Amino acid sequence: MIGTESLTDLYVEVQHFYARQMHLLDGGAFEEYAATFTEDGEFTHTPQQPPARTRAGIVAELNRFHQRFADDPVVRRHWFNMLKLDPLEGGDIAATYYALVVTTRPGRNVTIAPSCVVHDVLVRENGALLTRSRKVDHDQVP
Amino acid sequence: MIGTESLTDLYVEVQHFYARQMHLLDGGAFEEYAATFTEDGEFTHTPQQPPARTRAGIVAELNRFHQRFADDPVVRRHWFNMLKLDPLEGGDIAATYYALVVTTRPGRNVTIAPSCVVHDVLVRENGALLTRSRKVDHDQVP
Amino acid sequence: MIGTESLTDLYVEVQHFYARQMHLLDGGAFEEYAATFTEDGEFTHTPQQPPARTRAGIVAELNRFHQRFADDPVVRRHWFNMLKLDPLEGGDIAATYYALVVTTRPGRNVTIAPSCVVHDVLVRENGALLTRSRKVDHDQVP
Repeated sequence: MIGTESLTDLYVEVQHFYARQMHLLDGGAFEEYAATFTEDGEFTHTPQQPPARTRAGIVAELNRFHQRFADDPVVRRHWFNMLKLDPLEGGDIAATYYALVVTTRPGRNVTIAPSCVVHDVLVRENGALLTRSRKVDHDQVP
Repeated sequence: MIGTESLTDLYVEVQHFYARQMHLLDGGAFEEYAATFTEDGEFTHTPQQPPARTRAGIVAELNRFHQRFADDPVVRRHWFNMLKLDPLEGGDIAATYYALVVTTRPGRNVTIAPSCVVHDVLVRENGALLTRSRKVDHDQVP
Repeated sequence: MIGTESLTDLYVEVQHFYARQMHLLDGGAFEEYAATFTEDGEFTHTPQQPPARTRAGIVAELNRFHQRFADDPVVRRHWFNMLKLDPLEGGDIAATYYALVVTTRPGRNVTIAPSCVVHDVLVRENGALLTRSRKVDHDQVP
């Protein structure tokens, strides 16, 4: 259960949690990023793919995914915005928000894509927010 | 009158209100979007055009505007940022913020434009925030 | 010392402070922007350059920098996001966040670049937040 804090406190805590979480991911700290998920966390970063499961599984998937940048060095930044929070039965929180990936390559324009809507379930363990599941939907015309 | 809540509470409430409002708009829920305006609300989404007035008028204008996408299917996401709140006489709130429209089309790059500054007047009715008026200014060199 | 306010209050205050600060900068109010720094403030907006120092020095540097737009009129908007706050010894606050510059030119696409990570030290003087130092790092592949 997220607890009895005010919605104001929770909303700001989630913003701050996401900032720390994505600075970790964008800085290549995959183990620390995975530690912001629950031990049994699920992370589906690409639609139609099965989720990575458990912290170890998330680290493995991130290492696999980032091999594509081995010959294409980039700096990537994840931007989140337009955050909605909704309580779930049992006290967890559904967080839904927009995301963009900002990519900088040497000698080229900054690209901003894809545009995504992300669906998280957030829980509190030992006082700290954690992501139990993350599902990233890429914008696409139906 | 917005009320006696703290600026912290109000600032977060406005952020959350805008998130819900724009998820509605971007999801095509025009009636629900219009319901986030006062009954006599005004919405000027394009400079130099007269505002749409009343909830019914806003829905009609959105249906009219979105006809341009009938043959050009897109997913659009509105991003708001750099939000300033200023109290108005009588207890309403002036909200001023930056906005970008993120547009995804099949088989093409994501485009992000226009860049806007939006001027809202927010009021509280029966405990809920509502937009009384919205005026969108597109960035353009003077 | 920032003080005894809650992290929630501080986080929102910093968001609001940055919104006001960047509306000033983007509106060309360089003196008012410089007044959001401490009297001995430091501002390093371009990596590998020495910082502008003092409010007067910051105004002078902004006037110098903006000469490049004399023959290339633009509207620029600074977007900040993914804000992290960390307390420093002595009560100041380290703020670390992502930034993008959105540039609109007549008859051309909106460009969004560079992508930056900004490192601020924030202090409180006479009840108001001020920036003591700002160092902007542009994203670049190592």
